[in-house]
Parts: sequence; structure tokens; C-alpha cells
Amino acid sequence: MQPLRIFNTLSREKEPFQPLTPPHVGLYVCGPTVYNYVHLGNVRTFMTFDVLFRYLTHLGYKVRYVRNLTDVGHLVGDGDEGEDKIGRMAKLEKLEPMEIVQRYTNDFHTILAQFNFKPPSIEPTATGHLIEQIEAVKKLIDKKLAYESNGSVYFDIERYNAQGGRYGQLSGRILDDLLTETRELDGVGEKRNPLDFALWKRAAPEHLMRWPSPWGEGFPGWHLECTCMSTKYLGQQFDIHGGGMDLKFPHHECEIAQGSGLNDIPPVRYWMHTNMLTVNGQKMSKSLGNSFLPGELFSGNHPVLERAYSPMTARFFMLQSQYRSTLDFSNEALQSAQKGYKRLINGLRLIRQMDYVAVEGMAIDPAQGEEIRNGVQGCYDGMNDDLNTAVTIAHLFTLLKKINSLYTGQLSPAALGEESFRFLKTSFVTIIEDVLGLLEEKQGNAEDLAAGLLDLYRDFKTQKQYQKVDQIRAYFKANGLVIKDMKTGIDWAYEE
Amino acid sequence: MQPLRIFNTLSREKEPFQPLTPPHVGLYVCGPTVYNYVHLGNVRTFMTFDVLFRYLTHLGYKVRYVRNLTDVGHLVGDGDEGEDKIGRMAKLEKLEPMEIVQRYTNDFHTILAQFNFKPPSIEPTATGHLIEQIEAVKKLIDKKLAYESNGSVYFDIERYNAQGGRYGQLSGRILDDLLTETRELDGVGEKRNPLDFALWKRAAPEHLMRWPSPWGEGFPGWHLECTCMSTKYLGQQFDIHGGGMDLKFPHHECEIAQGSGLNDIPPVRYWMHTNMLTVNGQKMSKSLGNSFLPGELFSGNHPVLERAYSPMTARFFMLQSQYRSTLDFSNEALQSAQKGYKRLINGLRLIRQMDYVAVEGMAIDPAQGEEIRNGVQGCYDGMNDDLNTAVTIAHLFTLLKKINSLYTGQLSPAALGEESFRFLKTSFVTIIEDVLGLLEEKQGNAEDLAAGLLDLYRDFKTQKQYQKVDQIRAYFKANGLVIKDMKTGIDWAYEE
Repeated sequence: MQPLRIFNTLSREKEPFQPLTPPHVGLYVCGPTVYNYVHLGNVRTFMTFDVLFRYLTHLGYKVRYVRNLTDVGHLVGDGDEGEDKIGRMAKLEKLEPMEIVQRYTNDFHTILAQFNFKPPSIEPTATGHLIEQIEAVKKLIDKKLAYESNGSVYFDIERYNAQGGRYGQLSGRILDDLLTETRELDGVGEKRNPLDFALWKRAAPEHLMRWPSPWGEGFPGWHLECTCMSTKYLGQQFDIHGGGMDLKFPHHECEIAQGSGLNDIPPVRYWMHTNMLTVNGQKMSKSLGNSFLPGELFSGNHPVLERAYSPMTARFFMLQSQYRSTLDFSNEALQSAQKGYKRLINGLRLIRQMDYVAVEGMAIDPAQGEEIRNGVQGCYDGMNDDLNTAVTIAHLFTLLKKINSLYTGQLSPAALGEESFRFLKTSFVTIIEDVLGLLEEKQGNAEDLAAGLLDLYRDFKTQKQYQKVDQIRAYFKANGLVIKDMKTGIDWAYEE
Repeated sequence: MQPLRIFNTLSREKEPFQPLTPPHVGLYVCGPTVYNYVHLGNVRTFMTFDVLFRYLTHLGYKVRYVRNLTDVGHLVGDGDEGEDKIGRMAKLEKLEPMEIVQRYTNDFHTILAQFNFKPPSIEPTATGHLIEQIEAVKKLIDKKLAYESNGSVYFDIERYNAQGGRYGQLSGRILDDLLTETRELDGVGEKRNPLDFALWKRAAPEHLMRWPSPWGEGFPGWHLECTCMSTKYLGQQFDIHGGGMDLKFPHHECEIAQGSGLNDIPPVRYWMHTNMLTVNGQKMSKSLGNSFLPGELFSGNHPVLERAYSPMTARFFMLQSQYRSTLDFSNEALQSAQKGYKRLINGLRLIRQMDYVAVEGMAIDPAQGEEIRNGVQGCYDGMNDDLNTAVTIAHLFTLLKKINSLYTGQLSPAALGEESFRFLKTSFVTIIEDVLGLLEEKQGNAEDLAAGLLDLYRDFKTQKQYQKVDQIRAYFKANGLVIKDMKTGIDWAYEE
């Protein structure tokens, strides 16, 4: 089997994945800023790392997966000036900032559970690591990599690069270009260099979220929390750091600078970035009116959506693309994904119900076993090629053909032989459920089906077919329901 | 209507509830220490305050409900010496303490959601408020109410009482008795007085969870977090503080001392404490082998349980007692609660489906309207009498009789008149769902009922009753299912 290869943004190459201290793997992913409903682009990122978490675990690694919640310090505009995103929303909604955090954290967890994401091992918050952040700032000041200015503290890019740092290496930007770009920005007044970024910000009087520090009342810079939380729980250098590609610069660039500056070692071995979503070929954006939330996708309640799409349809749809490609949402593509998902899940139901039965005198056909092994191998090759889930799904469909042949009787389990049959069954179920995280979404509403049975019950009653009447009563009873046969009509109720 | 009256542990009396700044109400409840699965006693406490939160909201108050998660500082034995509960579990399970916190926080949320608890407005953590705790310790030292000793800081009970504090007032303990009781305990060496309690503890070398402080590396005392988080989010004095009665002493006694010491005002107006659970008349305890978890209750997988009981059966069961009574779990009582719950929910389904229809010439019977008003009034009187949900439920059953009479046709909606009919409908639904938080647990498994329909389909097919065959196909199609009519057999699949 090919070993797992991961595209490392740092080297711009697919590299074989070798953890620092196997079987342990440390995985850090930048989570949401909990000031608003989670959007689909974020969901795609978290789905990618959910699949990576699942796959590494499936391969036998012991993964510590840390995904943070940003509950302070992320400013409107993603820079060093302006209001806190959460504080701004708190003022708008006349709530305490932590009420905003709670509301959107709850929403985030609810949505991710609908998509069947596994919870991370640790979900730390920025406010839960203020002391760690203050200590980090102190250390960077001691190492002359940061300086205080008017109650705020900034990271000194020039000094960092002079000491061997390579700010810009992750995003491939040239320092001089960056300097030109940023010369016009606000807040330069406090900074020695416009590229310097805030580690700690003095809180303006109207700023709601604030804590005492050696530099006066303030709050941490956005980039610092990830450095403190990732290294606290995964070590000064750890295996994989993931996030959306919009975080590559400046957020992840700053994390490398902070981590290297603090601990004299690059903090991350493999940097992974997920690509963007588009809708009908256009960037998803509020101003274009084509931006819908996961909840709107599930309800179909948005002008660009022709109907509702279930969480597993959406999951299947997203996994049909490799995470580094852009992914285009359209009704056509979603409807085709829905068909594909249901075909796969019908296969899952069938193989679950099948069991191996030997047929005397029937010879094993080695070509059949070979095809199954190739199909399963294809699934793993897809995963190993930088999580190319599109390839994995394609190979699941070749295995599905075998399952359908077994179901219709064209192919006998005995022709596969017990070993190949069991290998097919185990692999198909495991890859769909454990690795890709696709679940069977039950269809069929019990109340509707009960109403159908009750219609037939009424007919049988009229026709005095009492055996059938009793048969239907028994179906209800087995389901905790009782048929109420009254003068005024026939109805059902919960059995008391 | 009687105003809401609450039994205040502080005065040992039922007092009319008057919030400090209506319509706002501040409610703080001590949450779990997330080092283990939540137990049923905790569930009862959180259910009580879930109902209080719901009822106050129903009455029109704007409630800020804060329930914390203790993720550091709670020591084995609940005192000032020994291992941290979370740190101990982390060592046993060879995990990072925050992995323990995450696992049991997730379990806690899952279990509470099954019981249909509303999430609190804010769910703060002790580690998220370390700076606030350190600042509080500094302030108490400045006010001479605390002293450092060997890297730890203790609250000075004698000094507090000399300045007018009344340590012991909540639990009704006499200071001298307490002194006698505690003289033999460990750790007295560092304390001026054995009753003094830790605000900050020096971390022993093997202690995992530790932060820098003005007194060296350490961690906060268990009692301090609640003082800092309640006053941060609800103000120096707030309306209601709740918890299990086992927290009255010393935890809540210490909170009063800390809050009064810090802000020169008693922190809480109304203290509410919930009573304990017993099983078949005995205290629930691991050593007696009669202690089962919520998950075991739901699965029935425990020696003392004769069968599984659903979350709503358990919720109904708990609400049949007032929160200040002990509550005894037995199979008999749970089975009777299950019947009661199902009777109530059958009534809920019925009244939901009924609508008012005028009948020409039928006179309104004023006695009927009177009975309905009395029944609803009885429900509110129960709630207003210190959340006596047992009384509320009893009155729901008198309303249920009316609903059943309407259903069987003994009573006509027209005899009630439209106003009384709508009042009955709205009140019954609102009190059950919004106030008591009881939901209809759907019974009936769609796959089982589909299998029943498929049996009938096969019969009709054999009998060539093609109209019925089509009828059943239509039921399936309306549910997103398709009948597969193959040579090898008849089956259903998801429609692709």
C-alpha cells in the first residue's frame, strides 16, 4: 500500500506523512470565531479535518485533535484595529459578550453534530488561556522579539527576520512586497514597522472584553491564542496544523513567527489548507445574495436552493471533491449527490443484511476476489493521496456493483469465497461509516406509515377480515402503539 | 394569582420573589465538575433550575442563566488537600486533563439534551476565569481577609466574622462547633484557623494543572470560581443562586464569605437547594451497588432496573416531586410515571388535533369554563408555591379529563365556548411543553411499520388486489421509499 501523503503548504509538495512520535499524532485546526452562525466554507474545512482525524485513527494512530473556539481578540476586518467581532455583536444584540459566545458555540456544535463530525479531543478557548498568552508576550519581549507601545505589544517582524526568521515563507510572500502593501494601513503609528502585528492590545474605554496585564488593561491579539493553545496541548513542535486557505496569511504566518520566536523551533511539521466554496461558479458572498447557511441548506429555505438537502447529502457532496479543489454548489450537483448518496446507502443496507452461505460444489472464482481487493485498494489509495476522497468514493461505487450483483442473485457469495465476501462487507461498511463518516439517514415517518396501516385496518374491519385486523393491531402493539376503536372513529394512541 | 414564592435557604422561609431590577433576573447554578459521568442527583438539580428558568421566562422575565463547568480546583474529598479530581482522572486514563474535561463536558451536554434541558445563557469555566480569580485573591489580601502561607492563600474566617461576617449563617452552623469538627483535619499547618479555606493553592511538583501567580505556581481554590463568575456576569449582588443541598456547606457558605468580603454586599438574594435521590429507600451510592447513571436508566442496563425508562419518563417522574423533598427511585414508581407520562402526552396529541367548531343553538355551559379556569389556576398555583410541580401535574390531569371528554364526544367544544376551549388548549400545551419541558417522545419505528406494510403488500400481490398494491406503493413513495418487486423477493429501498 502507498503510505499516506499530505500536501504540505510549507513545501508546496505532497510529502509522506511521518509523525514525530508515532503512534501519537498531534493535530491542530483553527476553529470558528463564535460571533455568528457557522458558514458552509467553515464546515468544509472542519469536514476535511474530521475525515483526516477519522482516517488517522483508522490507520491505528492515537490522535490528539485540538480545535479551538475564538471567543475574544478577533477584530472586525481581521487586522489590529477596530472592534472585537464578539463585542460588536454583543452591543448590537444588547447582550453580554459571553452570551453571544454561548449562543453561537451551541449553534456550532448543533450543526457539526448534524454533519456527523466527531468531537475533537480538546476544544480550548482563547479566554481560557489568557495567562498563557500573557506569559508568551512577556517571553517574546524578553527575547526582544516584541515591544510595548502605548499599552499594546507588537511582534517585531524585522527583528525576527534579522534573527533568521522567514516571515512570509508559508504564504510565499516577499517581505518587501508586504511592506509596500501595508504602508497605508491604520495603526502604524504605534508600530515600528507596518507589518508588525499585535500580541496584546490596549483596551479602548468602550471595549467590553478586557483583562489586567503588565501593560495595562487589554486583550490578546488574535494570532497568539492558537500558538499558546497548540503548543500547550501538542508540544512546541507538533505534526499537523490545518485551516481554511484564507488563514494562511497573516494568521498562520504569524503563528509560525510566534512559535519559532518563543521556542526556537518551527511549531508545525505539516501545514494543510482547504480550498473555498463557490455557488454556481461565483464566490459565496452576502452581497451577491448567494450565501446560505447550513440550516438553510437543510430546510431548502433560501432563494438559490430549489429544495432541501439533508446533512448526509451535503457531506457526500463535499467529499466528492478533494479538499484542495474549489467546490461549486449548484442544485444540479446537489441533486446528483443525493442520488449517489442514496445508492451508496442502499448498498450499505443490503450488505449489512447479507451473510455468507457456502454452496456445496460451487468453485471460488479468483477473478472476483481480485476485483474486490482492487476496489478496496483503490479506496485506500484515494485516501493516501492527500485525502482524495473523490477517488475513494469512485472505488466504493465499483464495490457497490458487486453488492448489487450479490443482492439480485447474479453473483453468489460462494463464488467469492468466505474470505473475499467478509473482506468486501467489512471494508465497505468501515470506509463509508468510520472513515468518510457517512451515516444511513433513516427515511420514512412512523406516523405517516401508521396512518397508512390504519387506512388498511379500517378496510379490513369493514370487510370483517378479523385476522388481518388482529395482524395490524399486533404491528401497532409491537411499536408501543394501540389502536383506539371507538364509536366516533378509529385512531391510535401511545400505549399507556 | 398568587405571586411566585421561593423557599430561601438563607431565611428558611418561603418568600415572595422580587427581582432586583425587573424584568431582569440573574440566576446562577453550580454546574458539574467534569471529571466523570453526570449522575442522576445532579440531573435532578439541573432539572429543577431548568424548570425555574423556563417558568421565569414564561412569566415574562428576561433571565440570564449562568451555569458553570468546574474544570480545575475541585480536589478529591472536596477539601483543601489532595489531588485535583480532573488531574487524578487524567493520570488514571493517561490523558491530558483537558481531554478529560472535554470528554465529560460532551457527555454532560448529551445527557442534558436528552432530558430536554434548555442551554444556559452562559456556561463559563474555571480555567476561563483565572485572571479574575487571581485579582479577587489580591483584593481579599489587600482587605486583610486573606493571607499567604507557603505559596497558598487562605480566606481568614476569624477576621471575616470580626468584621461583621456571619460564616455559618446559610447552613445554620455555629462557628465554635465547626471549629471543633475541623480541628483534626490535614493542612491545618498552613492555616491560621482550621476553618480557613483555600483561595489559591501552591501546586505540588506532581500537580498537572498549574499557572503562574503572585504567590508562585498554583491553581485556584474550588469555591472562588463561582464567586468570580457569578458576580462577573450577574453583578455584585444578584437574584438567585441554586445548587444541590450537599453544596450548602462549605461551598456556598464560602461563596457568601468571598462575595461579601470582596464587595461589601451579600452576593445572593435567594438561595435555593435541591434535595437528594434515594433508590428503594436507600441513599444512592456506589458501595451499595444501587447507583445508576442516566445512560443506564435509558438502556435499562443495570441490576436494579427491571427495564429501560425513557428520558421523558424520568423527567416526568422527577417533576412529580417538589424539589425540596427527597425523591425515591423504584421500578414501581418509574413504571407508574411512564403510564402517567403517556396519558398526558396522549392528551397533548388529542388537543393539538382538535379545533373549535361552533354548533348552532348549543348554549355555553358556564360551569365547564369555570372548571377549566380552576384547573389552569391550579397549575400556576403549584408553580408559584416554590415550584411545586407535583401540584401542577395533578391539575394537568384534571384538565386531561376534559380533553378526553371532548375527544370521545361526551363534551362538545361548543358547550365550552370558543374562549374556554382556546384557553384550555393553549394552557395545556404551554404548561406541559414550555414550563415543564415535557416533549412528546415519538413511538413507532418506521422500519418496523414498513415491514408490516410490506407483509400486507405481499398478500395483496398474491391475491392480485392491484389497487391495494398501488395504495401501499404510494405510502412508501410518500415516505421517500420504494418497493423493490424482484424475482428473488420483495423488499424496500431508499428512493434514489
